[in-house]
Amino acid sequence: MDVQPINLAEFEAFARERLPASEYDFIAGGTADEATLLRNRTAFGRLFLRPRVLTGAGAPDLRTTVLGSEIAFPILAGPAGFHARAHPDGELATTRAAGALGTAMVLSSASSHPLEQVAAVATGPLWFQQYLFRDRGLTADLAARAEAAGCRALCLTLDSAVRAKRERNIRHRYTNPHSPTYEGVAVPDYDWDTSDAPRGVSALIDRAAGWSDVEDLAGRTALPIVVKGLMTAEDAALAVVVSNHGGRQLDGTLASVEALPEIVAAVDGRAEVYLDGGIRRGTDVLKALALGARAVLVARPLFWGLAVDGEAGVAAVLRILRDELATDLGLCGLASAAHVPRGTVTPRPRLGTLASQLPYAVNGNPAQVGQSDP
Amino acid sequence: MDVQPINLAEFEAFARERLPASEYDFIAGGTADEATLLRNRTAFGRLFLRPRVLTGAGAPDLRTTVLGSEIAFPILAGPAGFHARAHPDGELATTRAAGALGTAMVLSSASSHPLEQVAAVATGPLWFQQYLFRDRGLTADLAARAEAAGCRALCLTLDSAVRAKRERNIRHRYTNPHSPTYEGVAVPDYDWDTSDAPRGVSALIDRAAGWSDVEDLAGRTALPIVVKGLMTAEDAALAVVVSNHGGRQLDGTLASVEALPEIVAAVDGRAEVYLDGGIRRGTDVLKALALGARAVLVARPLFWGLAVDGEAGVAAVLRILRDELATDLGLCGLASAAHVPRGTVTPRPRLGTLASQLPYAVNGNPAQVGQSDP
Amino acid sequence: MDVQPINLAEFEAFARERLPASEYDFIAGGTADEATLLRNRTAFGRLFLRPRVLTGAGAPDLRTTVLGSEIAFPILAGPAGFHARAHPDGELATTRAAGALGTAMVLSSASSHPLEQVAAVATGPLWFQQYLFRDRGLTADLAARAEAAGCRALCLTLDSAVRAKRERNIRHRYTNPHSPTYEGVAVPDYDWDTSDAPRGVSALIDRAAGWSDVEDLAGRTALPIVVKGLMTAEDAALAVVVSNHGGRQLDGTLASVEALPEIVAAVDGRAEVYLDGGIRRGTDVLKALALGARAVLVARPLFWGLAVDGEAGVAAVLRILRDELATDLGLCGLASAAHVPRGTVTPRPRLGTLASQLPYAVNGNPAQVGQSDP
Amino acid sequence: MDVQPINLAEFEAFARERLPASEYDFIAGGTADEATLLRNRTAFGRLFLRPRVLTGAGAPDLRTTVLGSEIAFPILAGPAGFHARAHPDGELATTRAAGALGTAMVLSSASSHPLEQVAAVATGPLWFQQYLFRDRGLTADLAARAEAAGCRALCLTLDSAVRAKRERNIRHRYTNPHSPTYEGVAVPDYDWDTSDAPRGVSALIDRAAGWSDVEDLAGRTALPIVVKGLMTAEDAALAVVVSNHGGRQLDGTLASVEALPEIVAAVDGRAEVYLDGGIRRGTDVLKALALGARAVLVARPLFWGLAVDGEAGVAAVLRILRDELATDLGLCGLASAAHVPRGTVTPRPRLGTLASQLPYAVNGNPAQVGQSDP
Repeated sequence: MDVQPINLAEFEAFARERLPASEYDFIAGGTADEATLLRNRTAFGRLFLRPRVLTGAGAPDLRTTVLGSEIAFPILAGPAGFHARAHPDGELATTRAAGALGTAMVLSSASSHPLEQVAAVATGPLWFQQYLFRDRGLTADLAARAEAAGCRALCLTLDSAVRAKRERNIRHRYTNPHSPTYEGVAVPDYDWDTSDAPRGVSALIDRAAGWSDVEDLAGRTALPIVVKGLMTAEDAALAVVVSNHGGRQLDGTLASVEALPEIVAAVDGRAEVYLDGGIRRGTDVLKALALGARAVLVARPLFWGLAVDGEAGVAAVLRILRDELATDLGLCGLASAAHVPRGTVTPRPRLGTLASQLPYAVNGNPAQVGQSDP
Repeated sequence: MDVQPINLAEFEAFARERLPASEYDFIAGGTADEATLLRNRTAFGRLFLRPRVLTGAGAPDLRTTVLGSEIAFPILAGPAGFHARAHPDGELATTRAAGALGTAMVLSSASSHPLEQVAAVATGPLWFQQYLFRDRGLTADLAARAEAAGCRALCLTLDSAVRAKRERNIRHRYTNPHSPTYEGVAVPDYDWDTSDAPRGVSALIDRAAGWSDVEDLAGRTALPIVVKGLMTAEDAALAVVVSNHGGRQLDGTLASVEALPEIVAAVDGRAEVYLDGGIRRGTDVLKALALGARAVLVARPLFWGLAVDGEAGVAAVLRILRDELATDLGLCGLASAAHVPRGTVTPRPRLGTLASQLPYAVNGNPAQVGQSDP
Repeated sequence: MDVQPINLAEFEAFARERLPASEYDFIAGGTADEATLLRNRTAFGRLFLRPRVLTGAGAPDLRTTVLGSEIAFPILAGPAGFHARAHPDGELATTRAAGALGTAMVLSSASSHPLEQVAAVATGPLWFQQYLFRDRGLTADLAARAEAAGCRALCLTLDSAVRAKRERNIRHRYTNPHSPTYEGVAVPDYDWDTSDAPRGVSALIDRAAGWSDVEDLAGRTALPIVVKGLMTAEDAALAVVVSNHGGRQLDGTLASVEALPEIVAAVDGRAEVYLDGGIRRGTDVLKALALGARAVLVARPLFWGLAVDGEAGVAAVLRILRDELATDLGLCGLASAAHVPRGTVTPRPRLGTLASQLPYAVNGNPAQVGQSDP
Repeated sequence: MDVQPINLAEFEAFARERLPASEYDFIAGGTADEATLLRNRTAFGRLFLRPRVLTGAGAPDLRTTVLGSEIAFPILAGPAGFHARAHPDGELATTRAAGALGTAMVLSSASSHPLEQVAAVATGPLWFQQYLFRDRGLTADLAARAEAAGCRALCLTLDSAVRAKRERNIRHRYTNPHSPTYEGVAVPDYDWDTSDAPRGVSALIDRAAGWSDVEDLAGRTALPIVVKGLMTAEDAALAVVVSNHGGRQLDGTLASVEALPEIVAAVDGRAEVYLDGGIRRGTDVLKALALGARAVLVARPLFWGLAVDGEAGVAAVLRILRDELATDLGLCGLASAAHVPRGTVTPRPRLGTLASQLPYAVNGNPAQVGQSDP
């Protein structure tokens, strides 16, 4: 690496210099006014950590498990299409970096490299992301290939049946130069060569799919299923990635971290809950863990790492986040990333008692009113 | 169209380049400090959509009805004076564009073209906007002409009896070059040639009018009456357009979308409630529908469309909003624009359970306090 | 007037061009970080008007009474030292302008012109502002002169016993070139020639004064007493001007308009409550009236008027505020400035019912959780 | 002093001109995104003073006691490493200035001058700040030296066992040129020559220390112990400095002043509570006192004073804060810095009664709805 970014914001700045504007905007952009994209970041700033002292915690243990597999720290490489946008090694580099650091990789079904080749270089847990295609055979075949290749879970993205309006791509008249690499699978109308990748894939997805289709897929695979893209308690079920697709689908939602508490409450311990959206600092990870997430996923920062230095860049990105998390756990007096108390985070100062102090008397000058105030 | 605006903000930017500054400011401006004008936009940013997944909704049906007439999507061309400000075809172009897209047009009584000519080109529902003039004969005559011309409703604007202080117009020493086109109607003191159009019309309006005057007009026409310009639950009655006149009358009100819930609650299903003010995105429309609006009205964007490309520009404006709404309904898992659940929108994250998690113990280090905190 | 300011903000801008920087800063400045100065303005932006329609109100009656004297509209010329800072005619001009418009003038005891000369040109009610000096004789003598000159009330400023830190003055090494004009009164240590006027006067004021001193003064004069500078319900008594001295004394208080409701509640109709601080628009006046103020006082804008055009400028300032108030009363459907309902203003949208709509079911997809959320 | 800074913000600006950028950034900087650093300041702006009038208070008495020692005003010189960064006289200058003004000095264990030399120039109370080192012998020896030198308390910093990520230092590749001056104490691995001072000291601190270690130290010294770095009610015990280490350790906490109320409530009068973090104005001090702090500590401003004019600069900094506090106590009608009522500060305006005024009727036009709104 000829530059030395010290945090993820600097990684993005250096990556931006190296990428074509259209590719940078494709990766960095959100939908419509990008209000959700922004809120995914700012929402973390409205959550506050409550550090404890003298807990005797010692150096924290960063390990946790996801669906039974141990990972070295609770940050996964999240699914995102076509890593070759940022570096020719693409998903091969990302998967190697994740494995080297001991964490899991979630491979997008829009991969620059064939699933089997990626699986061959994986040394950590590999999950496969896919959609509920209208073509149920294609859906089942991809799941079968993932299972055969040794993947440990299917991550079903549920929020992409509708093509979002990503205006940065429209302004670039963006034509996706990348093609998915499922050579053995018949995808006759799989048209990636459009001005906006999601159109292609959204055209293939069954807009009328329901929970029974998830159950149907579950019946056809031995792999556990993680559903991704939920933002409401009403939809919480199974293992779930709370996600607004990084602000790339519906504009005007809450930040995913703001939706997390209601979903954790609804799931009530019956399944694991993950989160993506806006994670850029160890404190972000820690806040998500405190709110009940088992682990978090990062995606855009993988591209910034790839663009800066391929596999080594991705490894540096993950290492920075991991080290920041270790520091922050320590500063909070916590011993384990797998057990972060809810009280570690608060949405506001506890100023309530102040109100009950009014009115007040001074210097023997009695308070002259006795009204109560809500 | 020699330019290709992709959203309403770009339409406004292009229109601004094409319009004289005084006309742009007349259309875009609000009253006094323009606080309400700004809030009409920012209030939408404080409402958040709650998307659902796997609802089996398929592609959404955008149709709805207004006062019994079906329209293709719940966005009406709202009333605004003198469309010829932006294009010589004026209301003829706007009405044709609305009709071509299958939605309704609300014609201002300050029209650049005679009511009957506009009605002749209307292929969708046409409503006629008017005031409660001091001259009850003029009021009744206009209502009769609207009825005879085939209009389907009267839209009574109630917030314009007082001339507002629109400072952009005062600074331009704006003289209205446009005249209304009610040739057959005697309007002796109808003085449009002032520095600020509303003075003219406000001088004609009966400031002392009350609800009995509305009832009186209702007795003289077969058309249903929609009252426009209400902002409080106390005033809710009949079919109503919740509106602060686009921030052009009283400065310092809530945004109209912020007043919508209390009015919907007051009307309690007894009449249809519409909304105008700040609608610029499909998500804005969706939020208004979720809060109980039957449909929304847009006005300023009509001028931006006219200025950019006449009828084709207006059609593009309406089409963009319609397509964004279709996308956003789909992304929320909703099947119909006519049935949007209230829970689709929320004013804030549901973080309440966090507070009850405090205080907390870590690593066997017991929480040392038992105080309760509001 | 060679310029035509159309609102008070423009008056200030033009006045700034005409005044020496040290005098502009003396008038415009606040104390310390000027947080209160800023908040006095921004607090109005967090209060929202709720306009009513079809109330049959007609043109509003702006008249009201203060302490039994009728004034033409509820805006008084508030007390402020040395009007000659801005125009040689000083308080003579201000008093003539207030009288010509039919409202009251509150004359500062730090007047550029002798009390008796000012009283001679007053055609509206004149109040005299003074302090509780350590020298009780001086206090009583000034009250007696005010009574003899025909003043109708004493306005006792209570928040100036301590010299505030007005940093603009310190940076200008401001030396007050003005002297008070109580020729007949012995003020041996009345030292106005300091870098900051309040030092002079604060040195004379009795820091240990209590309510008994007010009662004592009340026993020595036939005039009613209005106490000025209160910001808490605990201190409410007598007729009172809710005031933080225009942000010039203690930095870090609430805006005066934010303190108004608790004081109105404490006074509970037993006395009249006035407000100063940040009034620049008719809507500001209307909000204050809705919150229970009998009338408001303006002070800095008097200087902007004086600087721009002497008496005519002051008259224009008052006329602009009056006309804006008339417009705003009309737009709210109100008939009288003396009777503005509390519900005319609200601190927030009534979105409460939204919360109870969650969770929600869509398309037969039942809401899967039953948790309650605060 | 060749410049005349009139407040602490100006002191910082002048100091910045005089210091090398790397030293300025070392002192001024926080950790990570510096969100906590910023919030320590802005939180004071969300607390509002409630001044009282006519309390008969007279000039306020600024004296108070800390751990039984009288100090002239409730502002201590807080612990911070290596004052020689800003002036060669370092802690000798700071201690002399604090003593001259009659307040206490808290000497950092990372002092530029030997503890005994500093103690020799102290004329006010001197406290000694230290850590719980892994080397219990070193910990006890330092405590013994402090006791022998006449210190009156030990201030135990508890939030520094983990090295924080201070990015300004990393960007400067900061190498600490300063060494601590405990000549007589064996600190074999005490490595200060790193890119970031805390690494050195954090490497020495026992991360697994618990409350029993504090009790152990208490058993070995006659001095009272003040624990510093607490931010939660759960940890409140003994005399405590509520502190987030000036935003230099964990980013993303509340401001220390926001954590103060919950800790004061938990301590419930059983011990003294102090505060540091963001104190720059007399109003900040007053707000902290009103929330229950016995006194506050300032640290960064000491460096700004040193950099501008050594001992005289520190004295000026403390004098400015003291004088502002005296002014602000007076403006609030308070007689003593040792007795500031809680009601002197409020987090928000008391607007509650406004809500109950809705809906409202005007001009005999009855409110037409009876819904209740939360």
